[in-house]
Order: sequence, then structure tokens, then C-alpha cells
Amino acid sequence: MKAEILCVGTELLLGDIVNTNAAYIAKELANIGIDVYYQSVVGDNNDRLKTGLNLAFSRADIVIMTGGLGPTYDDLTKETVAEYFHKDMQMDQASLESIEAFFKKIDRPMTQNNKKQAMMPVGATIFANAHGTAPGLALSENGKTAILLPGPPSEMKPMFDESVVPYLMGFSDKVLVSHNLRLFGTGESQVEEILYDLMKNSSNPTVAPYAKTGEVTLRVTAAGDTAEECEKLIAPVVAQIEDKLGQFIYGIDVANLQTAVVEALKEKHLSVATAESCTGGLISQRITQVAGASDVFGCGVCSYSNEIKQSILHVSGDTLMEFGAVSKQTAAEMAQGVRQISGADIGVSTTGVAGPGGGSEEKPVGLVYIAIDSEKVSKVIKLNLQRGRVDDREHIRHMSAQHVFQMILDALKSY
Amino acid sequence: MKAEILCVGTELLLGDIVNTNAAYIAKELANIGIDVYYQSVVGDNNDRLKTGLNLAFSRADIVIMTGGLGPTYDDLTKETVAEYFHKDMQMDQASLESIEAFFKKIDRPMTQNNKKQAMMPVGATIFANAHGTAPGLALSENGKTAILLPGPPSEMKPMFDESVVPYLMGFSDKVLVSHNLRLFGTGESQVEEILYDLMKNSSNPTVAPYAKTGEVTLRVTAAGDTAEECEKLIAPVVAQIEDKLGQFIYGIDVANLQTAVVEALKEKHLSVATAESCTGGLISQRITQVAGASDVFGCGVCSYSNEIKQSILHVSGDTLMEFGAVSKQTAAEMAQGVRQISGADIGVSTTGVAGPGGGSEEKPVGLVYIAIDSEKVSKVIKLNLQRGRVDDREHIRHMSAQHVFQMILDALKSY
Repeated sequence: MKAEILCVGTELLLGDIVNTNAAYIAKELANIGIDVYYQSVVGDNNDRLKTGLNLAFSRADIVIMTGGLGPTYDDLTKETVAEYFHKDMQMDQASLESIEAFFKKIDRPMTQNNKKQAMMPVGATIFANAHGTAPGLALSENGKTAILLPGPPSEMKPMFDESVVPYLMGFSDKVLVSHNLRLFGTGESQVEEILYDLMKNSSNPTVAPYAKTGEVTLRVTAAGDTAEECEKLIAPVVAQIEDKLGQFIYGIDVANLQTAVVEALKEKHLSVATAESCTGGLISQRITQVAGASDVFGCGVCSYSNEIKQSILHVSGDTLMEFGAVSKQTAAEMAQGVRQISGADIGVSTTGVAGPGGGSEEKPVGLVYIAIDSEKVSKVIKLNLQRGRVDDREHIRHMSAQHVFQMILDALKSY
Repeated sequence: MKAEILCVGTELLLGDIVNTNAAYIAKELANIGIDVYYQSVVGDNNDRLKTGLNLAFSRADIVIMTGGLGPTYDDLTKETVAEYFHKDMQMDQASLESIEAFFKKIDRPMTQNNKKQAMMPVGATIFANAHGTAPGLALSENGKTAILLPGPPSEMKPMFDESVVPYLMGFSDKVLVSHNLRLFGTGESQVEEILYDLMKNSSNPTVAPYAKTGEVTLRVTAAGDTAEECEKLIAPVVAQIEDKLGQFIYGIDVANLQTAVVEALKEKHLSVATAESCTGGLISQRITQVAGASDVFGCGVCSYSNEIKQSILHVSGDTLMEFGAVSKQTAAEMAQGVRQISGADIGVSTTGVAGPGGGSEEKPVGLVYIAIDSEKVSKVIKLNLQRGRVDDREHIRHMSAQHVFQMILDALKSY
């Protein structure tokens, strides 16, 4: 069973928004064993939408479309698909009522053009939209199925999970299971050099590396009749990878470094407090992204100025005078300070030059000190994170946070 | 002149990474007046890559490809394009040397497979990669041009700006100018209802709305022979929009709310300090994303626990006992407290139930109080941000921050 993803929207085509829907749908389809060989984007243009739809159905059995279900005159996905299947449009009373109810709930006036969203092709299976006004739908005939979903990801994603996956499950004849090994501190080339034979020769399970800034994910995917069969295929391969790259693996099927940190702290019944300068609150923000972070985190101080480093974190004026705000001494005192004022088991800190301005020969952009202070481990690490790019500021802040999370995970091994 | 974007990568096709490259390239092409009618994604598969390339060249003069230039055996974009243009591959000595230099600079061993990245089709224009190992290239013949760029956005983007834009400028015959009006506090439907005639009937300039969570951007784009001509076309349309929607516009061509806040504070020579509970540092993190934020921001406290609200922000124990952490009284005292301990002109705060746990009938998930305290304006706003979705936690945090930024901008009108 082959599917194709066709996203409709001039705002996608012009690059005004990033196409997160395609990634989401592709991942969900892979999970239920449906292959995707092409993704496409077309604008809100009737002719090109028709061309795109014809092309997609020439290569695939299922075409999943997002966008163009809105209330406005240039939203024409439904009409184009109805035409493809030779269906008339009719008012769907249930959809109309739920659109009216939606506007009542969010306490905004319903505009006349919203009624267009309740017009549906005859014979469509309708997917209710609990989070917006545009219902989704499926039309199926002669082995070809079109699935139309609203463009806003916050409406599309729950609709996909709640309505489309159950609808599609009938089409799939196998089960896929994946596990994601998360690595920090190594690059994609290095990983592949080490795992070359395994990756090249494995077909079930497959092993595929995915790199993003400062991290590599190794995805091990098996296909089988049951989930248990897949797990049995995956286990020995994961063991092999752990054997070769174990030092870099910070978690399996964990969402990200901050989740690994929160889980590890919970397990050891320890708490952490953050003192941030160059990261400006990024570390506390990422820790508190994790639901339940309050079990292990109560206090973060963003001490962006020297005054606040002194008055709140008790960094000594002499230290700041003698070594400067960006120094290993200041980093150490910040970590000690936040640990002391918060009563947390572990204090961590960042201080550095995120740029683009503020660098000097002695302390260039990208120089960052990170520190940890606890009963068992106290240390400072010096990082050089400059790459000489325009977007270095966010990179330097991001990588500083990554290293702090890794430093916490390392320290927890002593507990 | 028509271009098409063809992104290559199984990791895109499977949804393991989001295709930010397509959006970036589309936007840059629009800026230099090159039309894009289709974007596509194919996997690392020779046959489908060939099919995709043939199809793209059947519809467009320029095909811009990303990905598949890596060192590994499944990276085959260059080879496929060379085949399409009937060119042999040869070692490019300059590329080889710069790859060797790159590995020296980042102090990692160069692996044997990296040499493959210096193999180039005969007759290609080569784009140096200052930020990675894969050079980019252009091949042009008989009115068809293929441009190949590395997949990692951190390598692709600077290469696009530094090498591809100058290369392509020769192809374009008009100038496009856009201005983006940023709106907060209204929805896309409402905006379009108000601007219906203007949007429907305008062709030069065009007016297009783009919605993302809690914001709408109106993009006004004109085409002309010179930038000056475009500006003259745009000015009266912007004035019309300001007349109708001025109350919601927080900036023109400003990147986002936090940048508008930092700029407005700089202009008034004022500073802000943040006291965050449910947002966990998100507000300070977003303020410090803006380069030069240190002029207006020195102190953020993430007081996630009641103890820290008392000990650092001096929220009274009685207030917490009587009204609870999520209350207008606590929000007000947090804003006052952080203003007082930091010496900033303005203090702002957030306290709420971000969920998914921790809600009650009296204080449900999504209840957030935000407060501002300054010499001229002190107030607390109660927000209900729950939508009943799985990703509500991040939504509630994000929207709380949005409202805080808007509250600061509103307060600054009194100065």
C-alpha cells in the first residue's frame, strides 16, 4: 500500500511557513506500515492542484492532502477533489452545527464564510475537527482514496491521530516497530563509519542515522506480523550498537536530553537549580517543558547582568573584577550560588559570549564556561562553540544547554 | 523564470526531520523574483530521484535540490544529476583540500568516505561549504539549471545566501519587495473578513495572511522594475490596513514579539525583569534571543516552587497560603518582587497551570495569571488558555509569553 502526501498552500510554497505537517504524517504512516515515496507542495491554484492530484494518484493508492479547507475563496482543495471523483458538494448539517458550536465555545463571532467549511462532497467520510472549524474528510473509489485534512498543525495532528489512523488501519497489512537511540557528542559520519557494515547490510531491522545540531539519532526499525516479532528482531541489533557506541547514547526512545535529565533526576530523587547567563533561561525553559519537572526543579536564575550575578547569586565582586563575567571562576560561583540559595542538590551554570557582538581576542564569541556544583561532583568545562555563521547566537546557546544536560547526566553516574 | 524545489532524503520522506530547507529556499527565491510552483521530496533512491528530476525539469527551468551530498553510499544526488546532464565525475582538488582543512579546524579525523564529497560532475560551478564538508554545485545546459546543496540547514542556508543568490540573480528579470505586518490578538478569518475586498482584488501589491499560533502576519508584496517603484505601490496599501487593523499590529518587518519588545524598551531607555513560574524561563529565553537584549534586560527568576517565590521574590507566605501560587495576588507580588530585587523599571510575571496534571475545578489547566508592575502601570490579567489538546502544555506556555510581551508593549504606550 503506497501513499503520497500533497500539501496545499501558497504560504508553504512561498516559504512563509515550514511544512511540519508532511513530517508528522510521514512518520505516522511509517508507524502503521504505509510506504511514502513522494511528498509534494502546491499553491492554492486550481490547475496546479489538479495536476498534482492526478500525478499523485498515478503513483499511489492513497493521497493525503493538507490545507485549503479554510473559509476563504482561495481554499479549494475539497472542490478539486470532488471534481476528481465526479461528486457534487452538499451542506453537511452535522459539520455546520459543530462549526457553530466551536465559535460559541471560543466566544468569537462566526463569519458568513465559515459556512463554506460545512460543504462536503457527496459520499465523503467526515472527520470532526475538535480544535478548529474545518472538518476533514475521506473520499474513496476504485481503489483510490483521498484524505483531506486542515492545514493548521494544531488541528491536523489530533485529527490524524483520532480519525485518520483508525480509518487507515484497514489498509495496512504489516506492523512496524521502531526504537530511537539518542546520541550526544559524536557526528553522523563517525557513527556511520563505526556502524558501516551493520547499516549497509541490515534490511530487517533497518538502521538509519538522523543528525541534528549536536545530536545523532539511530533509528532501528523492524517489520513483522506482530509487535513481539519486531521486538525480537530489534533487540540483538540494539545490543550491537550499544556495544560500539554506548558511551554516546544518552537514552533510548527518550524525547530529548532534557527529558533524559528530568527522568534521571527523578530516579535518584535529586533536584537541580540553574544559573544562566548566556543561555538566558533556555535551560530552565527546556527542563520545564517536561511535564512533572517540578519534582526535580524549583529554581532558575537568569543573571544576565553582573549586578544580578552578585546580588542574587552571590558571585563575589572581586571574582567579576579580576576574571570577568565570562570565566571559569564566575561559572563556578554561579553554580555554587544557585545551589546554595535554592537548596537544590545540584547547581549548574552557564556564562559565555553568545554574540554576535561582545567578543574579544581573549574572549571570543563562542567561548562558554559551564559549571556544576554538588556534594559529589564540582567542575567547570570550557567550550568553544563558534562556527563563524550568522545564526551562531542560537547555536551557541543551544549547544551550551546540550552540554549542561550531558554534564548533569554524567554527574548522576556518581550517585 | 520558474524554479522547483526537490529535496532528497529518506529522513525527510519518513518524517524524521522537518523540511525547513524548502521553506527557506522558497522564501529566498520569492525575494529575487523567481516563481516556485511545486516543491517535492523524494527518498535516497536512484530511480525515484531520476523520476523526480525529470518531472521537475518538465515543469521548470531551475531545479534546486538539497540533500544527498553526504559521504555515505546512499548519498547519490550528484551522480544522478551528472547522469541527467550526461557528465562524468572527477575529483575536484580544491574541494578535497577544503574538506581536509575543515576536519583540521574542527579537530576530528577525516574518514575515507569524506573524499567522495570532492567528486564533482565535469563542468560544474562549485560552491564552497564554509560550514561543513559537502560542497554545493550548479550544472547548467540548454536552458536547464540544477543547483545542488547540502542537506543540513546550517550548511545549506549560508551557502544559499553567499553563493546561490549571486549565481541566480542573473536569471531574474524583476524585483519583488515585501513587507510583513505582524498582528497579535486577532484570527485569520477575522482579518480576512475585514480585508476581504483588499485581498481579493489586489494583484500588485498582493496582500496575503499567514497564521501561526496566536499571531497573524499580513504580507504585502509588490513587483516592479526597482525597489523604489515597489515601495510606492506598497505604501498606500499598508496605510489602508493600518487604518482598519491598527490596534492589532505590533510591528512591521519585525521578526517577532520579543524583538518588538526589546526594540521598544531600548527606544524608551527602560529595562524589564521577569519572574516566571508556569513559563519556566521561556520569556527570559525569548528576550535574550534578541542580540543586544542586555541593554534592557538583566534579571530573570524562574520561581517554579513556592519556596523560591518566597525566598527570592519575596512573595508573602500569607498570600501563597490564602490565595495559592496560581492567583492574581501571587502574580502581582512576583512582578513587584522581581522589579524590586532587580532594580528594573518594569517587572512582569507568570503563574498558572500548564498541565497536563495539576489542574482542579477551581483552577483548571490553562488558567494563567500574568502581571506587570512599573511606576506607571500595574495590573494583572487572567487568561484561560486551555484548548483540551495533547500539546496544550507548550501552547499554554507559549501563549502566556505572547500575552506578557503584548502587555509590555501596551504599558510602554504610557511612557
